[in-house]
Amino acid sequence: MVTHTPILGRRSDPDDLPEVHAHPHRFARRTSNVSASAVREILKVTERPEIISFAGGMPAPELFPVAAIARAHAQVFAEDGPAALQYSTTEGWLPLREWIADRMRKRAIPAEADRVLITTGSQQGIDLVAKVFLERGDSVVVENPCYVAALQAFSAYEATPLPVESDDDGMRVDQVEQALKQHPKLIYIVSEFSNPKGTTLSAERRRQLIELSLRYRVPILEDNPYGELRYSGVAPDALAALDRDGMVIHIGTFSKTISPGMRIGWLLASEDIFKEVVIAKQSADLHTSTVEQRAAARMLRDFDYDGHVARLCRVYGERCETMRDAIERHFPAGTRWTSPEGGLFLWVELPATVSSDELFAEALHAQVAFVPGACFFTGEQPTNFLRLNFSNQPTDRIEEGVRRIAAALKRRMA
Amino acid sequence: MVTHTPILGRRSDPDDLPEVHAHPHRFARRTSNVSASAVREILKVTERPEIISFAGGMPAPELFPVAAIARAHAQVFAEDGPAALQYSTTEGWLPLREWIADRMRKRAIPAEADRVLITTGSQQGIDLVAKVFLERGDSVVVENPCYVAALQAFSAYEATPLPVESDDDGMRVDQVEQALKQHPKLIYIVSEFSNPKGTTLSAERRRQLIELSLRYRVPILEDNPYGELRYSGVAPDALAALDRDGMVIHIGTFSKTISPGMRIGWLLASEDIFKEVVIAKQSADLHTSTVEQRAAARMLRDFDYDGHVARLCRVYGERCETMRDAIERHFPAGTRWTSPEGGLFLWVELPATVSSDELFAEALHAQVAFVPGACFFTGEQPTNFLRLNFSNQPTDRIEEGVRRIAAALKRRMA
Repeated sequence: MVTHTPILGRRSDPDDLPEVHAHPHRFARRTSNVSASAVREILKVTERPEIISFAGGMPAPELFPVAAIARAHAQVFAEDGPAALQYSTTEGWLPLREWIADRMRKRAIPAEADRVLITTGSQQGIDLVAKVFLERGDSVVVENPCYVAALQAFSAYEATPLPVESDDDGMRVDQVEQALKQHPKLIYIVSEFSNPKGTTLSAERRRQLIELSLRYRVPILEDNPYGELRYSGVAPDALAALDRDGMVIHIGTFSKTISPGMRIGWLLASEDIFKEVVIAKQSADLHTSTVEQRAAARMLRDFDYDGHVARLCRVYGERCETMRDAIERHFPAGTRWTSPEGGLFLWVELPATVSSDELFAEALHAQVAFVPGACFFTGEQPTNFLRLNFSNQPTDRIEEGVRRIAAALKRRMA
Repeated sequence: MVTHTPILGRRSDPDDLPEVHAHPHRFARRTSNVSASAVREILKVTERPEIISFAGGMPAPELFPVAAIARAHAQVFAEDGPAALQYSTTEGWLPLREWIADRMRKRAIPAEADRVLITTGSQQGIDLVAKVFLERGDSVVVENPCYVAALQAFSAYEATPLPVESDDDGMRVDQVEQALKQHPKLIYIVSEFSNPKGTTLSAERRRQLIELSLRYRVPILEDNPYGELRYSGVAPDALAALDRDGMVIHIGTFSKTISPGMRIGWLLASEDIFKEVVIAKQSADLHTSTVEQRAAARMLRDFDYDGHVARLCRVYGERCETMRDAIERHFPAGTRWTSPEGGLFLWVELPATVSSDELFAEALHAQVAFVPGACFFTGEQPTNFLRLNFSNQPTDRIEEGVRRIAAALKRRMA
């Protein structure tokens, strides 16, 4: 049903793969570093409706504000007419950039609209920053485990990750200085509710990280797709809010709060970095959909965004709690898990003897799916971790799914 | 009003630019090769409504099928609901891929939906192919002059253009073999109604180019954004229709026929290339807007696309003819120009003594704009060419604009 290859997440050394050399085309070397995301490959197996899937990172479709989005599109066509369908500037639709800058200022980030670039999802923000900074031989400091598609983006520019361990307070900043001595080009971090772990970088570590970034003059790429989704606790200041020297590039998205299908993300950077990223975007896709940018801006003019986010937080918070409680009740002794205060994911550490790949196959047999944790790691890939998504299933299916995984786990341990 | 710097189109050697070295950030070397597109910089100057602009490459907004597009969006939200707003596959929305494959088959291109990738505009197709094939030291055979944003995309992967001359039958294929001996990675060509010249590669040259591509095993990137816009003459077979060995990557777009603001393009490639390009797209932006893909597919289910394209051809054909006639009437002896059978552009060669940059400044003073031709050239940049767009202005303004340029030209020559 599932082989080990996609789960490993990246090809091994191209020298091990004779078919690459037998290839009729002379692809760039970068192609041998990057393979299809393991997570997306797993999703293809798990998208059948009878499967209770904790594998993806998808928001709950039943919470999409479909009516408000449909109305905003209709308004844009009625009010703007042809202008909504024409080419537009690479930087993006100014009213949307202004709304986003304003929102960031409310979180103490000193943002101005003219340094906000609209991107085709926040994934493009990662890709463009990678394109502007990275080349063969470069490295990027990353939390280990790390968001897979960021590793993939860095790898596409032939950079290697410099992994730093993490714990319940996020990236182990005490290990960062050692990594910075190897002259990396960037520090990449999902600062709030990380993917895959769901942990958040503590306030103290944030101050330390900013200081190190400045001392070694290595910019931080702060990826914050989940920051709006906080279910408990108090948000620490964003790294971009602590930064006074233009060292932080901050990226965000409407994918988790409005709709991922619209592909609207953004990037905030200091003027010099902003300029280079805009040039990179110009040759990448000219600009993000004029229609979607205007629809998002039109919607936000009279949509109760805060109320909508609060509703998401209520529902996801309940799902998160249900999952945590179910794990506590059903999983065997020796299991550990994170307790996220927000976001979409929970991270489970099984007893070291258990293989999450084997558990995946057994769980899939019982119609339940997750992502085995190995693919998120750089270097050594421990096999006893699971990433569980809780946003995309109702609480009864979460309860049932966790029960089934636990039963499969007990069978494997027996 | 306008300086010479943006018109030159690309920065000179970074060693000439001390401010690059004084930069606080360590950008990748690629950034020093790529500057903001000269065309887009010029557009910023020329977007004032009182200016008769032949500078852009924009379709006529008054011909956008706004009502049909608005209806399609409304139908997608009503019929598909949340599914239209969720993450989707990197390859794209299958019904749209099927429609596009079918359309290509009608032009004798052996297309199957599972080798069609939906891209964020056809610009992304160029960028992804560049990403998959090019690295520092590589080269790409290009027609000289060439579409600027393609040169920009290749440059972003540190490849250099290998320019081949062109005449009224398009790329001088008799010069291509010499270029292929330098082991380029790709041949890039706008095969029908090129940008900036408006010329089309002849049938005979197409057969020769396919043969050379196969003999030297260098794939052809056939960029055909304007192919649907034919006002006279007979379309030659696309390179992708002549190809029997998977050597042609074909890219297309709805930007010139439906709407550029929706950012829907596509790429057709052989299976092995397709696979690499999909992986590259995954890390670039995950996928193109689900909303826009579904809206395009929904619209095409009952929209008279052929009738709409025929209408565009009638209007643009008349504009093209008006511009050609006006040039013939007003421009001084010693001027030459292309006679495009379709597309958006006409290319004018002035007497060698005239500087199009100086003419640009003088014309702008008379409230009319164009793109000086130098930025489209690789290597030596002749200054006596103009690119004129005829799709974006009504015939009376075309007549008046050409008259004003001619008057400015006569003043300069006096």
